[in-house]
Amino acid sequence: MRPFGQPGDSSPESPGFSFSINAPWRFVVFSIGMPSSPVSLSEKRHTLAHLLAAAVLERYPHAKATIGPAIDNGFYYDFDFSEAKGSDSAPGEAELAELESAMRDLLPTWTEMQGTEVSAEDARDRFAGNPFKLELIDGIVEAGEPITLYTAGSFTDLCRGGHSEHPAHDIAPDSFTLDRIAGAYWRGDETKPMLTRIYGLAFDTKEELDAYKTQREEALARDHKKLGKELDLFLIDEKVGKGLPMWTPKGTTIKYELENFVRQLERKYKYEHVATPYLGGEELYKTSGHLEHYASNMYAPIDMDGDKFYLRPMACPHHIRMYQRKPWSYKDLPIRYAEIADYNRYEKSGELMGMIRVRKFQLTDGHLFVTPEGLKEEFKNVCRMIVEAMTGLGLIDIVSYRFSKRDPQNKEKYYPDDELWNKAEGLMKEALDELGLPYVEAEDEAAFYGPKLDVQARNVHGKEDTLFTAQMDFLLPEKFDIEYTDADGKKKRPVMIHRSTIGSLERVFGFLIEHYGGAFPTWLSPVQARVLPISEKHAAYAEELLATLDAAGIRADADSSSESLGKRIRSAKQEKIPYLLVVGDAEVEAGTVSIESRDQGKLDPMSGTDFVAKVQEEIRARA
Amino acid sequence: MRPFGQPGDSSPESPGFSFSINAPWRFVVFSIGMPSSPVSLSEKRHTLAHLLAAAVLERYPHAKATIGPAIDNGFYYDFDFSEAKGSDSAPGEAELAELESAMRDLLPTWTEMQGTEVSAEDARDRFAGNPFKLELIDGIVEAGEPITLYTAGSFTDLCRGGHSEHPAHDIAPDSFTLDRIAGAYWRGDETKPMLTRIYGLAFDTKEELDAYKTQREEALARDHKKLGKELDLFLIDEKVGKGLPMWTPKGTTIKYELENFVRQLERKYKYEHVATPYLGGEELYKTSGHLEHYASNMYAPIDMDGDKFYLRPMACPHHIRMYQRKPWSYKDLPIRYAEIADYNRYEKSGELMGMIRVRKFQLTDGHLFVTPEGLKEEFKNVCRMIVEAMTGLGLIDIVSYRFSKRDPQNKEKYYPDDELWNKAEGLMKEALDELGLPYVEAEDEAAFYGPKLDVQARNVHGKEDTLFTAQMDFLLPEKFDIEYTDADGKKKRPVMIHRSTIGSLERVFGFLIEHYGGAFPTWLSPVQARVLPISEKHAAYAEELLATLDAAGIRADADSSSESLGKRIRSAKQEKIPYLLVVGDAEVEAGTVSIESRDQGKLDPMSGTDFVAKVQEEIRARA
Repeated sequence: MRPFGQPGDSSPESPGFSFSINAPWRFVVFSIGMPSSPVSLSEKRHTLAHLLAAAVLERYPHAKATIGPAIDNGFYYDFDFSEAKGSDSAPGEAELAELESAMRDLLPTWTEMQGTEVSAEDARDRFAGNPFKLELIDGIVEAGEPITLYTAGSFTDLCRGGHSEHPAHDIAPDSFTLDRIAGAYWRGDETKPMLTRIYGLAFDTKEELDAYKTQREEALARDHKKLGKELDLFLIDEKVGKGLPMWTPKGTTIKYELENFVRQLERKYKYEHVATPYLGGEELYKTSGHLEHYASNMYAPIDMDGDKFYLRPMACPHHIRMYQRKPWSYKDLPIRYAEIADYNRYEKSGELMGMIRVRKFQLTDGHLFVTPEGLKEEFKNVCRMIVEAMTGLGLIDIVSYRFSKRDPQNKEKYYPDDELWNKAEGLMKEALDELGLPYVEAEDEAAFYGPKLDVQARNVHGKEDTLFTAQMDFLLPEKFDIEYTDADGKKKRPVMIHRSTIGSLERVFGFLIEHYGGAFPTWLSPVQARVLPISEKHAAYAEELLATLDAAGIRADADSSSESLGKRIRSAKQEKIPYLLVVGDAEVEAGTVSIESRDQGKLDPMSGTDFVAKVQEEIRARA
Repeated sequence: MRPFGQPGDSSPESPGFSFSINAPWRFVVFSIGMPSSPVSLSEKRHTLAHLLAAAVLERYPHAKATIGPAIDNGFYYDFDFSEAKGSDSAPGEAELAELESAMRDLLPTWTEMQGTEVSAEDARDRFAGNPFKLELIDGIVEAGEPITLYTAGSFTDLCRGGHSEHPAHDIAPDSFTLDRIAGAYWRGDETKPMLTRIYGLAFDTKEELDAYKTQREEALARDHKKLGKELDLFLIDEKVGKGLPMWTPKGTTIKYELENFVRQLERKYKYEHVATPYLGGEELYKTSGHLEHYASNMYAPIDMDGDKFYLRPMACPHHIRMYQRKPWSYKDLPIRYAEIADYNRYEKSGELMGMIRVRKFQLTDGHLFVTPEGLKEEFKNVCRMIVEAMTGLGLIDIVSYRFSKRDPQNKEKYYPDDELWNKAEGLMKEALDELGLPYVEAEDEAAFYGPKLDVQARNVHGKEDTLFTAQMDFLLPEKFDIEYTDADGKKKRPVMIHRSTIGSLERVFGFLIEHYGGAFPTWLSPVQARVLPISEKHAAYAEELLATLDAAGIRADADSSSESLGKRIRSAKQEKIPYLLVVGDAEVEAGTVSIESRDQGKLDPMSGTDFVAKVQEEIRARA
């Protein structure tokens, strides 16, 4: 027994079984037969979902409770308020405090929570009039599982279990709060009724709850959609289209810097740049297999004089046709093509997210044509370049590597050639180990045609996402009949590596905005320095300084508005400009500038020329 | 009377009347009642078409003659050989010499050519069995025109006239030649039978014919499609798609240089760069009027979750939505957005041409939002920038300017607001005159919504094409309800200028290839210098030199193959590389390089560092 307010079980949440993604019951955690103590956080959260339902039904007797699981920061419960009317109408955000208070009032009365197995008939009787529960009961019956009801206080719910057995004792009343209200379709199916979902946050202690709320606020402040708007970096205009972001002048400045960064690095690694169209003829995608395996991510074709063209979902076929424009000898290989390539992928409207998940993006793409003998070394070069790229962007600390292999048992998902797979996975492992790259292995995560290295990035919310990948491919060379002439004069098949330098410009931009909270390093900052003349009589000196900065290629502007200096400084700080250059009588006299650095605070005054040299070096080093 | 071989009438060809583009008889030039002498080149050419028909029918009695006009370098005649068989089968290129010789044999017998008017009945009798001539006769009867037959030697043809009356005397036998054979649909209609078209070249004298052939050969050698392949600059792959060129590594190098050139110039003229997607929602193009007026140039829409998206034919709506993301004051204007924007235009397969006419291109685009008061000055800035751009690319000498106005009588084609038109055309004329820009005026060539300046370029064949335009637009601001706040606090409507910096990258690349014959100025050359070590023992010195060039940002490579120096030099010259750097014993000893400049021949040997400085300066100056 633990007293109130003590930290609970903080081990990784383990719900006791692994459910299938498609199981309708997946949120109704079942715990019969599990050891009863200590009470896990997940169990507490699940119990709080019951408590929420009890409070809601007390206040809104016409509401129908449906399901309510624990989630990774608390819990939710979905209700149908369609029969609620008048003062009994559905709650809004304003009513959350009232409901939360009602939960706190009920909690001390929930000294015990007990489960009973009942017959289907009894269960149907109890939930008569609630078609959602009746549907759930049908499902349990069909699966041949026992039907259990759980009761605490005067509230009984259909449930598989997985609760605190003594809620009043186990749950600290200040460890939870109701968070927000959202709409959700019954069973996530958009053809079914829209329900009202009430979310709660819950942790073991108030301290943990408060820490979570603070961390979430900070993360929200860094949200790239929010900052993108505040800093005027990009916009998503409904008329242009969802999932089709536009880069504003400031965003485009960053885009160009990223493009230059990528191309410079690619030149260093001996890539050749090509430029290919975002449309491709049907035959390309028949040959590649995209139409067979990837059609659900592609848009419908466009007819041009009877020929079908697709908005390309990938650029591999284009680069392959580029390779095939002339014969190659083994001495020419590896051939490395890079392109900031336009990609088009179908995404459902509801899944679009700022710059992170879009319908049209530009991948810093590349395809290498390599001799089998040169494959391992070339793959190592690809990895070296990725590390250099992530270091250059300052993202290296949030990046991890996942070595994604096939599941040898899954014969359908993977190209069926055991020898090839063993060789490719062996080579990739050797390459990673020889480089000393830290990675985790993941089975059943490979591409259809070969193993891959996933470059994973953690966002500000702590969630991991794939930023981009590097893949070995033995299949497309076969399908497109790609060749080179070997030293023995014979035609041989090269291996392909598909890889990216920094992922899509859109997604990496989203990550960069969040990682830096909009305070980009100088080389990426849209405005690198702002000149602030103290009064009108310093305007000429300010103009001169601005001209010097401009000539030196430093992106600078001046704010000579009539606002107070303090206000102008605050405004520049909101824009997260790296350097503010204040010029007044002292500076004009001494021929210097006073510098306020965003990252280092006040610097010693220096001459305009010295400042230029300092910033130029910082930009050159991309520091 | 002029003796054989003397220059004929070289005044601009005037066929005596201006025919409608759609008149089926447009090629059958009619001359009854025209003054009979001197014989124009056009008349000679038309006469030679008859002579060709006579020679063909003599050799291929089953052929059916159809029509044969004069064209701007000679003549052609279309035949139906579908009933020709065996030794009498249709002629190929190999038979042209034989036919040409037969024409020369017949010519002396054509001392006179005479026309007679005949009845429809007589005409139908004479051409019984030739459905093409019968169809023509029907057309003349329907139009209520006289039917005339022209006879020379023993050959009679249905014809409106416009010939030499004394062919044997007027036409020099060495002033013409048969050129080539092509297929052509009867009356240019692809649903009608395919005919065989035989082309001939004809001028007044052999000298002029030879000069034309030489000039044409030179132009063909500069053809951008031919050079694009020879120099490996771009490729059009049938599987990727017709009209969808791909830029090879060398082409992409030039593309990037052009992009940098454009963006640098645009920054100088205070443009802000934006990046917007090549897809746009249906509403944009409903509002803009593109769906109403421009749909035939657009591709079918793509459905995304029930919303329709178009591959955009223009970027104006995107830039307008960008402008509308925030409120603007008159002090903020002009707002100038520039983008190398993806455009998609429907073109028939048959009209596609290399890089010049494509289905997807990148326009160096821009849209300006200007106060009415600032319009003239801003338009002048646009013109100044165009002149600077064309000068920078070295195209200024092949460029001319056309001031395209509306036809005030054409009420349907132009936005109906006389006052606006008068003001806009007046302003544009003032701007052009104040700049002293030489231009021609063209009526009925304006855009629907305003006057424009067309930047015309002459290609190597002497043909003029529009490279790009600058347009004033009062209409889209109205349609999209664009605003700014004026000094008096009132909402006002800005004017838009649509303009380009150098046109589409594809088209200007095509022009540049042809203009320079592939010998690009150094800054644009994919390989700027090639190092040629005389033998293996100079390889280390060559490598060192290459590293120096590389570090200096000069695009260089080395050819250390075992081929003779002479052969390696020839190969580099074929690639039109600006500088060849030969290094042997003397150079190693003196620490210099021997330089062969593509444009200036042999230069004095200099140190590697001096060479770098020289070329860097040349590149910086884009000389």
